[in-house]
Amino acid sequence: VPEPPVSPRQSFTEMTELVLPHHTNAVGSVFGGTVLSWIDVCGAIAAQRHCRRVTVTAAIDELVFLAPIKLGNVVRLVGRVNAAFRTSLEVEVRVEIEDRRTLVRAPCVSALLTFVGLDDNGRPAEVPPLLAETDDDALREREAGVRRAERLARKPVRSLGLGPSR
Amino acid sequence: VPEPPVSPRQSFTEMTELVLPHHTNAVGSVFGGTVLSWIDVCGAIAAQRHCRRVTVTAAIDELVFLAPIKLGNVVRLVGRVNAAFRTSLEVEVRVEIEDRRTLVRAPCVSALLTFVGLDDNGRPAEVPPLLAETDDDALREREAGVRRAERLARKPVRSLGLGPSR
Amino acid sequence: VPEPPVSPRQSFTEMTELVLPHHTNAVGSVFGGTVLSWIDVCGAIAAQRHCRRVTVTAAIDELVFLAPIKLGNVVRLVGRVNAAFRTSLEVEVRVEIEDRRTLVRAPCVSALLTFVGLDDNGRPAEVPPLLAETDDDALREREAGVRRAERLARKPVRSLGLGPSR
Amino acid sequence: VPEPPVSPRQSFTEMTELVLPHHTNAVGSVFGGTVLSWIDVCGAIAAQRHCRRVTVTAAIDELVFLAPIKLGNVVRLVGRVNAAFRTSLEVEVRVEIEDRRTLVRAPCVSALLTFVGLDDNGRPAEVPPLLAETDDDALREREAGVRRAERLARKPVRSLGLGPSR
Amino acid sequence: VPEPPVSPRQSFTEMTELVLPHHTNAVGSVFGGTVLSWIDVCGAIAAQRHCRRVTVTAAIDELVFLAPIKLGNVVRLVGRVNAAFRTSLEVEVRVEIEDRRTLVRAPCVSALLTFVGLDDNGRPAEVPPLLAETDDDALREREAGVRRAERLARKPVRSLGLGPSR
Amino acid sequence: VPEPPVSPRQSFTEMTELVLPHHTNAVGSVFGGTVLSWIDVCGAIAAQRHCRRVTVTAAIDELVFLAPIKLGNVVRLVGRVNAAFRTSLEVEVRVEIEDRRTLVRAPCVSALLTFVGLDDNGRPAEVPPLLAETDDDALREREAGVRRAERLARKPVRSLGLGPSR
Repeated sequence: VPEPPVSPRQSFTEMTELVLPHHTNAVGSVFGGTVLSWIDVCGAIAAQRHCRRVTVTAAIDELVFLAPIKLGNVVRLVGRVNAAFRTSLEVEVRVEIEDRRTLVRAPCVSALLTFVGLDDNGRPAEVPPLLAETDDDALREREAGVRRAERLARKPVRSLGLGPSR
Repeated sequence: VPEPPVSPRQSFTEMTELVLPHHTNAVGSVFGGTVLSWIDVCGAIAAQRHCRRVTVTAAIDELVFLAPIKLGNVVRLVGRVNAAFRTSLEVEVRVEIEDRRTLVRAPCVSALLTFVGLDDNGRPAEVPPLLAETDDDALREREAGVRRAERLARKPVRSLGLGPSR
Repeated sequence: VPEPPVSPRQSFTEMTELVLPHHTNAVGSVFGGTVLSWIDVCGAIAAQRHCRRVTVTAAIDELVFLAPIKLGNVVRLVGRVNAAFRTSLEVEVRVEIEDRRTLVRAPCVSALLTFVGLDDNGRPAEVPPLLAETDDDALREREAGVRRAERLARKPVRSLGLGPSR
Repeated sequence: VPEPPVSPRQSFTEMTELVLPHHTNAVGSVFGGTVLSWIDVCGAIAAQRHCRRVTVTAAIDELVFLAPIKLGNVVRLVGRVNAAFRTSLEVEVRVEIEDRRTLVRAPCVSALLTFVGLDDNGRPAEVPPLLAETDDDALREREAGVRRAERLARKPVRSLGLGPSR
Repeated sequence: VPEPPVSPRQSFTEMTELVLPHHTNAVGSVFGGTVLSWIDVCGAIAAQRHCRRVTVTAAIDELVFLAPIKLGNVVRLVGRVNAAFRTSLEVEVRVEIEDRRTLVRAPCVSALLTFVGLDDNGRPAEVPPLLAETDDDALREREAGVRRAERLARKPVRSLGLGPSR
Repeated sequence: VPEPPVSPRQSFTEMTELVLPHHTNAVGSVFGGTVLSWIDVCGAIAAQRHCRRVTVTAAIDELVFLAPIKLGNVVRLVGRVNAAFRTSLEVEVRVEIEDRRTLVRAPCVSALLTFVGLDDNGRPAEVPPLLAETDDDALREREAGVRRAERLARKPVRSLGLGPSR
């Protein structure tokens, strides 16, 4: 029996973090690796909510730091599933900084990741299809499909870093 | 100029965590101290959103673990301000576990904390009053006031642990 | 066979910590969640020494921060069992800061926690009774009993945060 | 005075990690966020060795997980600068797993990141040009330039996640 | 004015730790580096209590692991100052495992470390002399002196690892 | 069948770390325990590469801090096997700080550790002999043998810290 489709709304994930000194780097902003961990968790939860399975990160397709995050900032992450392919999902994670005095939020990282759902033997499992409920859902799903096609087309060009040790 | 009142809706905070092995204890559930850290962060962010200042934890007035949290669980925390006193706030934090297969959420920790807002010299600062928008807001505010009165009445009975080293 | 009673002296626990930058918050004092983790460990060890079983945190009944802890401070925690009920224990944890130059200690947190002992299947197990050896032991045991009766009387008033998602 | 060119050999970075339980996820392989942190550190060190300045992560342009990393594995990361633009660098990081019995290494992650060098005021600073010493250096530099041109061409299409909160 | 002598009793330090999964290695015992961190903190606190200054680790003169520490164990560390030289101290740290069911303690690590006290400019400062109060204090002080003489005699033989990169 | 000898070159290990705030102590240099963890990992990987088995730290025979490591520094560790005895190895770990502007490296810690290889039941297993390929290899092997003989001769003098609690 195929699994029923799942809408982005059902897997939508919100995380909030408070920046403490152990998250920072030598110049007082958040260390890149800390943000990457938060993004990975946020995306993984959205993926898991879609699949109702354990998921693992397969790729980061795009990730841009737009502004540094400072000690004491409140950081908000939201994760949403853009598209479901056979055994994988494109998940978008956005990170925002919230100003302590005005509560105004400014985007600081934008990321697209691919997650894969695993069956009980740790092998890729089919994931439920996406249920696009809104025009925005449908647009994102279409764009994700285009990006995936482009990536698959680009890849064979050069086996980046996968040949024998250079 | 007194600061304008802030509603619980404006400071409402949602956090999501994925339980990893480094969060667990020797019997495979989440180590108590880990959950307490998450609760403290969640409450501090709600308090900071209300005050628009740095806040520090002044007290945990009540905290009950209702169910263990297991490795792999998704945990959701929500924080909301119940009441604002002169320089302090009562913040309620609820923790829920989300079942991976059904997405059904079950409560696992319920906590009431007091936070204090600090001015730029690190001294307690007046906090904005609460704006109760709903009947539930008003009920919670009233109950928080009762709890506070009871606590203040209870305290003097015995200077618990504050005398000279025993 | 019922287990022999255990005195507070036998389960008394002392911990010492040195405050490093990764323990701190954005204003240079120890992050609340760090102290809560230390308190939870200290209480759990005292509880485990009393029960000789794995124990889990069931509740924080009262916890007050009296003074901030600063980077570089030496922090001392002591945990002692105040009372043993059927399957649970009230444990008191006091946290003190030690001045580096004078070695004078000042109280900074005072907490009362409830721990539950678990059997090999992870279910609550009966805990040994308390052996009050001194007048202070007996006073604490009596007070813990009063607090517990008050808590049980207070609880039913309102099912705090346990109803359906509000 | 322009800074002298720097060869990839001079900034080449090698890191080694031993996988411990606190690096893992719920299914016993390394948690994605942990690997991302290692990759970010490795790339940052290579970038810093090229610029001789503090650098920050600006983007992850491509990152693929090829195989899971297991508890107890030795992990080797190598980072090398592929190309230097005006104020930014493309750095490639490859992650390999080493089999404990045979010492054979298998690739497990391949990543391309962009780092930006900062001046003493935290603003982007010009970075030294790349000195391509080998044919492979020159090939990589050329490919990085192509990727960058493609990225710049792709970006304007859609302001991903940067519009008002959806 | 020379500082008054300090007895080992005054700087005696006791730490207690509960072994959680994030402290362990791939075979389920405590990761060596975790124990070394605990030992370093324990020794540093004893040294700081003697000097009433910030101290830094100068050397580990001897450290032996006698038995593995397992997940769930309670670990007790005690630190004591054996001898004070001009600007340095020999501190002994012993680590014991406590059996959960019997509370019997077994030694598991024994270590001798040298700490140096720093003045406000971060330079070595004279430390107070040791006040040997018991025969055991005097014996330890004498032995520490012998060990130090032997170490100073041994050192010049070979500039271990300090020459140009081999 | 005895295992074939392994040369120091085959087990040589290089690690690189970037010093972040969570690695530091109250005076802004790297906390001793952090460096000790890095050294332990570096030595363990070299030992594991020699034995092709899980190894555990048996002792630190000598460890000297020569210079403090500061926030933002790049730290390089190299580990090499000096000698193989029946079930144990002497591993030398050197730690160097790299100046960000000149890339000049200065030694900051020098350590000698003993590791033991474990069989699948967690018991000491015979380790492969060392294959000294160079004069330096042979010199180091000889010196390690002398140090071991001296240590064995020194030990019985006093059962340091292993008697009943003092």
